[in-house]
Amino acid sequence: MPMNRVCELTGAEFPLFAFSHCRDVVAAVSKAGGFGVLGATRFSPDQLEEELAWIDAHVDGAPYGVDVLVPEVIDPRVRELSDNKSRAAAIDPAYQGFVNEVLGHYGITPEAEMPILRERMGITPENGLALMEVAFRHPIRLIANALGIAPPAMIEEGKKRGVPVAALVGAKEHAIRQAEAGVDIIVAQGTEAGGHCGEVSTLVLIPEVVRELSRAGHDIPVLAAGGIMTGGQMAGMMAAGAQGAWTGSIWLATPEAETSEAFREKMIAARSRDTVRSRARTGKPARQLKTAWHDAWDAPDGPGTLPMPLMGMVSEPAFARIEREAAAGNEGARELVTYFVGQGVGLVEQVRSSRQVVQDFREEFIEAVSGLSGMLAE
Amino acid sequence: MPMNRVCELTGAEFPLFAFSHCRDVVAAVSKAGGFGVLGATRFSPDQLEEELAWIDAHVDGAPYGVDVLVPEVIDPRVRELSDNKSRAAAIDPAYQGFVNEVLGHYGITPEAEMPILRERMGITPENGLALMEVAFRHPIRLIANALGIAPPAMIEEGKKRGVPVAALVGAKEHAIRQAEAGVDIIVAQGTEAGGHCGEVSTLVLIPEVVRELSRAGHDIPVLAAGGIMTGGQMAGMMAAGAQGAWTGSIWLATPEAETSEAFREKMIAARSRDTVRSRARTGKPARQLKTAWHDAWDAPDGPGTLPMPLMGMVSEPAFARIEREAAAGNEGARELVTYFVGQGVGLVEQVRSSRQVVQDFREEFIEAVSGLSGMLAE
Repeated sequence: MPMNRVCELTGAEFPLFAFSHCRDVVAAVSKAGGFGVLGATRFSPDQLEEELAWIDAHVDGAPYGVDVLVPEVIDPRVRELSDNKSRAAAIDPAYQGFVNEVLGHYGITPEAEMPILRERMGITPENGLALMEVAFRHPIRLIANALGIAPPAMIEEGKKRGVPVAALVGAKEHAIRQAEAGVDIIVAQGTEAGGHCGEVSTLVLIPEVVRELSRAGHDIPVLAAGGIMTGGQMAGMMAAGAQGAWTGSIWLATPEAETSEAFREKMIAARSRDTVRSRARTGKPARQLKTAWHDAWDAPDGPGTLPMPLMGMVSEPAFARIEREAAAGNEGARELVTYFVGQGVGLVEQVRSSRQVVQDFREEFIEAVSGLSGMLAE
Repeated sequence: MPMNRVCELTGAEFPLFAFSHCRDVVAAVSKAGGFGVLGATRFSPDQLEEELAWIDAHVDGAPYGVDVLVPEVIDPRVRELSDNKSRAAAIDPAYQGFVNEVLGHYGITPEAEMPILRERMGITPENGLALMEVAFRHPIRLIANALGIAPPAMIEEGKKRGVPVAALVGAKEHAIRQAEAGVDIIVAQGTEAGGHCGEVSTLVLIPEVVRELSRAGHDIPVLAAGGIMTGGQMAGMMAAGAQGAWTGSIWLATPEAETSEAFREKMIAARSRDTVRSRARTGKPARQLKTAWHDAWDAPDGPGTLPMPLMGMVSEPAFARIEREAAAGNEGARELVTYFVGQGVGLVEQVRSSRQVVQDFREEFIEAVSGLSGMLAE
């Protein structure tokens, strides 16, 4: 029997949702009774097709989902730019100069010219929608969207195919707008989350969103996101009103993940205070491990950041370069290595397999609930 | 039988700790089975004596505590200034000019001169220690300290009298230092908390601090502080490793509290996003309801803030003035009204009696735990 409504909707046995850019994590989590969600944004449509075919062949029929990013609000500075070439042309060369300066300071020889991302990559509405179309060709049990209201095409297609649509929000007003648009599951994400995030903590946001939805007459389950690295915390957010946990950072410390060894080492060493919410990677506020990269861009005398997707066009090639150099043993490059990760990084103590993480969550969840029940019994 | 170790230590029946500057709240909470803690910082030693005598006469023998602030780190700019007169003399008159400008902009006629706080008030180590001495003359069951390591005099006196010493921390390293200094209870306070706070969310901080203490061999209970306004959240933080909740903001929305009607109205209207962590009231980062006061001081072209206690010497008389004017119907003054409150303000929907709040917490706690237990049973 499903544990609750969100398990019913998605087919998850245990409502632990695992967001990952890595198909191996997605398949492993779903097979272990959780629910893997593939982050699609880094892929071209053809690549996504390949990834999902792989998952279909390896997930043993367990339910999984896909997460795309369809930004709702487009910065006026990029609205008229319809391809990556014209976007690249719109970036003041001084920005690449600044990148080269930062890299040079850490012993990385500058690129002669800024590399241009391939078409059909980067966080734009058209790319998000193209990825969504690919996702719907597979037996997904959830499609999720972030960065604004889920587009009508996603809601319609989801309803038609019986695929629940989830939306990430960081404020109660956004939850109401999503519910009115027809979304089936709200992922309320606190400021401690890795990646794009708002300002309110998970602990406060969960009851606030749950109450507001209920008051407005929307019977929609809420998942808690941001800071959750243990089954005890998951039980905690369910005590506060959530129906499950939406997790991301914890999967970066698995051997299956896309993260480099250099980054995993940093995760294990990091304290919860070592992250920063900064625009200096995607152009929107996103939490990541703090390095000299952020110090440079966010400094009062820095160049300021570019709007999405231009900032990513400047930063992502630089980070690809940083990772290559770090892997080759460049110590300066290792200092700059960073990635999207939440404050929960302070709870990461070792690399564990995805399967093991799911199992640990289940055990910790049971232990936490039994502990509380025991207290009431006294 | 006590629910857990923290109940054993303090005599609390239900481990809901209520920090308040108002004796009525303290007595009401303790009588209802929670544990009231009087914030002593605003009082002179004589006033505190009077407040505690009142509590002793009205708490029906229920356990209660006192919270003082003994700042550990003193800003070098104020180290040599030993009384409020010399401190006031050290403040550049431009700051009072800026206060007058802000107040004037909101229809409040400026003061001719900056009012000077009475001696034995203001957040300084000597004032904190004087208040502590008064507290120990009463049958308190807890003494708490914030803003750094509890001073040796507090630890010694606590041990001698069998009064547990609690210390507020916002990072795991601080918890270890407190434990090594001999503190009995750690209050781990997340960034969403009202008043002085760190950067890490409560949800992440609790398991991080609990683990770190346990790893270092310190068997010390941890209370969760920051954002907790319901029994469901309290159960949640106990699922994540805490032994109880330390709350503050929720009591500001009781009829017993020291807050003005203007502020309570703002609390009910506020969303969780309407707070700010700013130095513009005490000189150290403290969360409060965001108003034009913070916009003015924290603006890039603002005057910057002063160190503790100088900032409070400038701001507190201004806020006293603002409250008086707001109460008299000045609409501009109402806009400036603010106070220390956490992100949980978004969960405040009405003014309830302190007794009712304790009762609601208990019911919500039981409901949350029963809900989770039921899920496991399925």
